[in-house]
Amino acid sequence: MSRVIRTAAAQMGPNPRDMPRATVVARMIALLDQAAAQGAELVVFPELALTSFFPRWFLPDQADVDAFFETEMPNAATAPLFARARALGVAFSFGYAEVLQQDGRTCRYNTAILVDGTGQIVDHYRKVHLPGHSEHEPWRPFQHLEKRYFEPGPFGFQSVKALGGRIGQAICNDRRWPETYRELALSGAEMVLIGYNTPRHYPPAPEHDHLQDFHNHLSLQAGAYANGMWVIGVAKAGVEEGCDLIGGSAIVAPTGEIVAQAATLGDEVIVADCDLDRCAEIRANIFDFAKHRRPDVYTRLAAPGIAT
Amino acid sequence: MSRVIRTAAAQMGPNPRDMPRATVVARMIALLDQAAAQGAELVVFPELALTSFFPRWFLPDQADVDAFFETEMPNAATAPLFARARALGVAFSFGYAEVLQQDGRTCRYNTAILVDGTGQIVDHYRKVHLPGHSEHEPWRPFQHLEKRYFEPGPFGFQSVKALGGRIGQAICNDRRWPETYRELALSGAEMVLIGYNTPRHYPPAPEHDHLQDFHNHLSLQAGAYANGMWVIGVAKAGVEEGCDLIGGSAIVAPTGEIVAQAATLGDEVIVADCDLDRCAEIRANIFDFAKHRRPDVYTRLAAPGIAT
Repeated sequence: MSRVIRTAAAQMGPNPRDMPRATVVARMIALLDQAAAQGAELVVFPELALTSFFPRWFLPDQADVDAFFETEMPNAATAPLFARARALGVAFSFGYAEVLQQDGRTCRYNTAILVDGTGQIVDHYRKVHLPGHSEHEPWRPFQHLEKRYFEPGPFGFQSVKALGGRIGQAICNDRRWPETYRELALSGAEMVLIGYNTPRHYPPAPEHDHLQDFHNHLSLQAGAYANGMWVIGVAKAGVEEGCDLIGGSAIVAPTGEIVAQAATLGDEVIVADCDLDRCAEIRANIFDFAKHRRPDVYTRLAAPGIAT
Repeated sequence: MSRVIRTAAAQMGPNPRDMPRATVVARMIALLDQAAAQGAELVVFPELALTSFFPRWFLPDQADVDAFFETEMPNAATAPLFARARALGVAFSFGYAEVLQQDGRTCRYNTAILVDGTGQIVDHYRKVHLPGHSEHEPWRPFQHLEKRYFEPGPFGFQSVKALGGRIGQAICNDRRWPETYRELALSGAEMVLIGYNTPRHYPPAPEHDHLQDFHNHLSLQAGAYANGMWVIGVAKAGVEEGCDLIGGSAIVAPTGEIVAQAATLGDEVIVADCDLDRCAEIRANIFDFAKHRRPDVYTRLAAPGIAT
């Protein structure tokens, strides 16, 4: 039986802060329709797809922060997206800011969900590697306050059975960490979905600004190759509220090769046939984990408190 | 105080099986002299630099295998290399097949040593990730019997103080494993020396043969970037006993950029100024391990026996 998933990366242009969620969702539905017209069975949207990338703002009033969060999913704003995807029988994933009550307290996560072709949410992932800082740093031209507005996902990485294979999720900065891909691969993932919002300008080391696209693809391609997995990287791109975000959405094969890549910084669909059986080309050979990994000598990887 | 190490990657052409070690060492001395003439303070030679890459042969007689091993280091064959380097005040590293008595038994390792500018061996590294197979597989055009002729290095990865910084070593297939770089970086490594012998043809998945150079650089560059380290990759290249080995020796900056690359498949020196202080551009920022790593949720990385 074929295990090819025709997969779309649905890159999105900017979501200005004053753009209503209904407008954003209408754009997402248009992208979904384009992808479905090309036969896509899975459509991957970016991190924080419904709103602006608000961690760029220092917002002293928590009510202003909470306006970016979703208290339930689906909700009134996203119901039309769920309905259209279900009608088309298309699976999809997207990221959003999630607030929920957990163990008697309010938790806020940078979250991504995977929804199967019947409209069921089959995976919630909460971002593990939160980048940036937690205090207002006025010297920056824009902030990166993920460590202030979110708490780190406490559940780690796991893949789920879906679409005839095992699918995992990660978000943005997670893709730079080899641990992300390896944890997912060791849980059996054959495809990893990764939305991102990546500013061109990195205030602590601006001398690397010209390397942002290179680092994005290097991370996605190395993660795919070293784990023999499909990796779907999807940007929110373009100039969002004065902040220049990279594009470069890419579908990466288990060999590390980019097989489809976005060519714009706006709403754009790219599609590729992702054969999950191709993972074995890598994972049954050079990266046969059971045969070649050496957890007996990995003494530092999971040790707490190592700081060099 | 400057922490720039002018570093040479001394790529070597093939060592046919009948080439005496004295001839090989004379070539290494010529490369060392070329590097020193360009001001190099450290010269990095490949894996199994003194001999042919003998794991390509099935040798039923252990005496034939042992002919490729060194029982002491330095020894008569390598003493002239040690002497020249000491006279020049140049540090160097190279790989060789090492046999030693340990805990009352004979152990054979795929080993690399680092020798400082005074001629002292300051690091022994024994290859952790042995690729290939342990039984003769006659269907292959050539064997890859590292799992037969060597035992896996039991000591893991560590970096040592040398040349004003912390230097780590890895060998060939180690460079494909993100765990290698991370273990070394968590031990404080600022530069990693990696020799390799990589056949162009990979018998279990020949459809990837055209990707060998890409996979080599992808691994070296991703390892450098994701850990903010210098990575020096050095090939034994060219056609060795009918087996086509890739070249592509490269000096990779902590940004993942290749700053020097070999252009031949033979004996060739490339040189770059490697400023160890540049590691902080990455490791004090986006890959600040203490601030951003999440060992609390890395549940699978070092767990024994996970096979997916």
